[in-house]
Amino acid sequence: MKVKINSIPPGPRARGIIEVMNRNCYNSTFTYPLVISGGQGCVITDVDGNSFLDFSSNIGTCPLGYSHPAILEVLSEYSHNGAHKIAGQDYYCKEHADLSEKVRTILPAGFKTFFVNSGAEAVENAIKLAYRKMSTETPSLLPGLSCTNAFHGRTLGALSFTLSKPIQKAGYPELPALRIKFCTDENDSEIESLQKILESNKVAFIISEVVQGEGGYNFASKRFVQNLRRCADKFGVPLILDEVQSGMGRTGKWWAFEHYDVIPDIMSAAKALQVGMSAYDAKFDPGEQGALSSTWGGGSRIDMAVGTATIDVINRDGLLKNALAMGERLQKGIGDLSKDDKTGITGVRGKGLMIGLELDSKSRRDQLLTRAFKNGLLLLPAGQKAMRLIPPLVITAEEIDEGLELMQDIFAQT
Amino acid sequence: MKVKINSIPPGPRARGIIEVMNRNCYNSTFTYPLVISGGQGCVITDVDGNSFLDFSSNIGTCPLGYSHPAILEVLSEYSHNGAHKIAGQDYYCKEHADLSEKVRTILPAGFKTFFVNSGAEAVENAIKLAYRKMSTETPSLLPGLSCTNAFHGRTLGALSFTLSKPIQKAGYPELPALRIKFCTDENDSEIESLQKILESNKVAFIISEVVQGEGGYNFASKRFVQNLRRCADKFGVPLILDEVQSGMGRTGKWWAFEHYDVIPDIMSAAKALQVGMSAYDAKFDPGEQGALSSTWGGGSRIDMAVGTATIDVINRDGLLKNALAMGERLQKGIGDLSKDDKTGITGVRGKGLMIGLELDSKSRRDQLLTRAFKNGLLLLPAGQKAMRLIPPLVITAEEIDEGLELMQDIFAQT
Repeated sequence: MKVKINSIPPGPRARGIIEVMNRNCYNSTFTYPLVISGGQGCVITDVDGNSFLDFSSNIGTCPLGYSHPAILEVLSEYSHNGAHKIAGQDYYCKEHADLSEKVRTILPAGFKTFFVNSGAEAVENAIKLAYRKMSTETPSLLPGLSCTNAFHGRTLGALSFTLSKPIQKAGYPELPALRIKFCTDENDSEIESLQKILESNKVAFIISEVVQGEGGYNFASKRFVQNLRRCADKFGVPLILDEVQSGMGRTGKWWAFEHYDVIPDIMSAAKALQVGMSAYDAKFDPGEQGALSSTWGGGSRIDMAVGTATIDVINRDGLLKNALAMGERLQKGIGDLSKDDKTGITGVRGKGLMIGLELDSKSRRDQLLTRAFKNGLLLLPAGQKAMRLIPPLVITAEEIDEGLELMQDIFAQT
Repeated sequence: MKVKINSIPPGPRARGIIEVMNRNCYNSTFTYPLVISGGQGCVITDVDGNSFLDFSSNIGTCPLGYSHPAILEVLSEYSHNGAHKIAGQDYYCKEHADLSEKVRTILPAGFKTFFVNSGAEAVENAIKLAYRKMSTETPSLLPGLSCTNAFHGRTLGALSFTLSKPIQKAGYPELPALRIKFCTDENDSEIESLQKILESNKVAFIISEVVQGEGGYNFASKRFVQNLRRCADKFGVPLILDEVQSGMGRTGKWWAFEHYDVIPDIMSAAKALQVGMSAYDAKFDPGEQGALSSTWGGGSRIDMAVGTATIDVINRDGLLKNALAMGERLQKGIGDLSKDDKTGITGVRGKGLMIGLELDSKSRRDQLLTRAFKNGLLLLPAGQKAMRLIPPLVITAEEIDEGLELMQDIFAQT
């Protein structure tokens, strides 16, 4: 077993650090008293020497797990670089060009890129590209259209199109927005509502995930996504697909929209890519200089180089295939677990290593998460009463089985 | 002379990289064909071996210049860390706690912190803190109040309160906003307009810089800033001061507002700090978890550690004093230069190493900037026809004099 819990966290060192942060910082969305020090493969270690099997990939941001040789090589190379972080939209650097070349190989043909600092900024710039294009045709203030349970980030532009948890929006103003239901059922009659809305409303863009992350690990039905594309085309509205959580191989394809046979006009990515990216069909390029910018965007040279290395390793080591195979193994294992009614599991859904596990109640979900953490397995909540399982893409069959074994123990205690 | 121009940039390597970026990326705000490779002290080098005296500090983000031993030490330490970038508002790390402790020593007493990825995100979260506080009292949608020529960032929330260049806002929607004139003259009668606006409008916050960066290196008059504070108190409105460019010692004090004997309720910082930060009087803490978050905020462990080291070095090496002394030397030198009418210099203004130099026309300003670049001196534009001079805080008298010598040559060619 790779997991090792010396003392139930928070241990003495973790307690000291958490105390400092509680005193000085806003207590944001910390789920567990986990104070990370380092890691190896799919195992992350805390400051008290506890080891956890990480089925959270640091909220999807560590697709190669920890201490991957290719990433350590980048860090080592930049340890001598005296200009490791620069103003990347004002001055050029090779890492920016390299990542743009690398990412071209996994983007739809003819897409251009704009790099920023986070997923929220990637969405902000994606919608700015759409607004700018549409506003040249209609100068009025058009609403954007987004889906129920969507999560697109927390800056106020992106947040206007987020509809996940009320606490994320309470008290904040929003830009004009229209909403449609995010349909997971092929036969949902509400799929048709989009056409009616667009017949009577001009909108600046349609934005959606195809697999909702934060909102509950909900997988859109194919008919729903294809209808988004069809209506976007019919009414001349840009379709933005947000791949911040689902992209970069998480679902066994580079982008989750590839499962749906559609191509967006504009897209956003971040997390596993190490930097934020708005990518877009060249016809959405603002042309003129200065319509978008960001001081550091494209200038975090270490992050850019790690992003490039991440794409290389996913290709070289066949990690898309691994995500599909390991995802299947994990889903099958959970399916076996759920045969025991006492587990409270009411459903499992997934593509590749992006797996949602629905429980019968929020309280049971939260209790199981805490118990998993104390037993050395890192799992995350999603939506109201689901768990998300998103191990690093490098995970092995042995580690999947270790995770399932831990889950068996944890769920058996219910 | 430290400056060395082998071939007028872009040299052959730079050309190749810029070609790739022109093909793949949005051409954002690149001022010069400068492809950065490394640097030493206040000198930055490009991929063709050209060296430039950097009076731009990479848009204020490199206050210790390049290859500073304290920063190389951090990079070297993290070259072995297998979890160098984590989800910093979901999991804890020591670097987050350390930076929060360090920054406390330079913040107003009783301030708490929230770390994010950029200056734009720092402003977004600053205004979110204000909205949240005010909306608990008045649930209606209140406007925010900002100043003419303000620059607060480009995400749509922050951009709503930005009023610098039209291209930055063209085609984008904005949140409700009221504007006042940013007054640099102590006797400007418009200073009084704020009170009248607040008598007839309820607002969510007042946001301002005290020294405008992007907007033109404009220094607010003391009466203007003190009136912001007085009116904010009188009408119970939070005062947000944006120190993204002016903070972290740039003006010879940690925060530019210290020159004005005021303390904000909420503030934003970034650039020289290496990460974004919203800092606030504890009474603005949302209390409840989940009102603010960010996947990476506080989790870029290298950036956090470099931020902490930066504050240490500024303290240890007396760089606030150095900024005052070197700023005075630079302003005096420019004053001498401007005695020659042919230079086109119509004014110079500054505090510490945040210096604005006004030219008689935009075309002359732009011509001088290009000529400076070709001669190995990196200067930046600001506002309509000003230049900003913001060398690293570590700059020496010898380097200031070298810069002045280069400027003399450049301006003499007019």
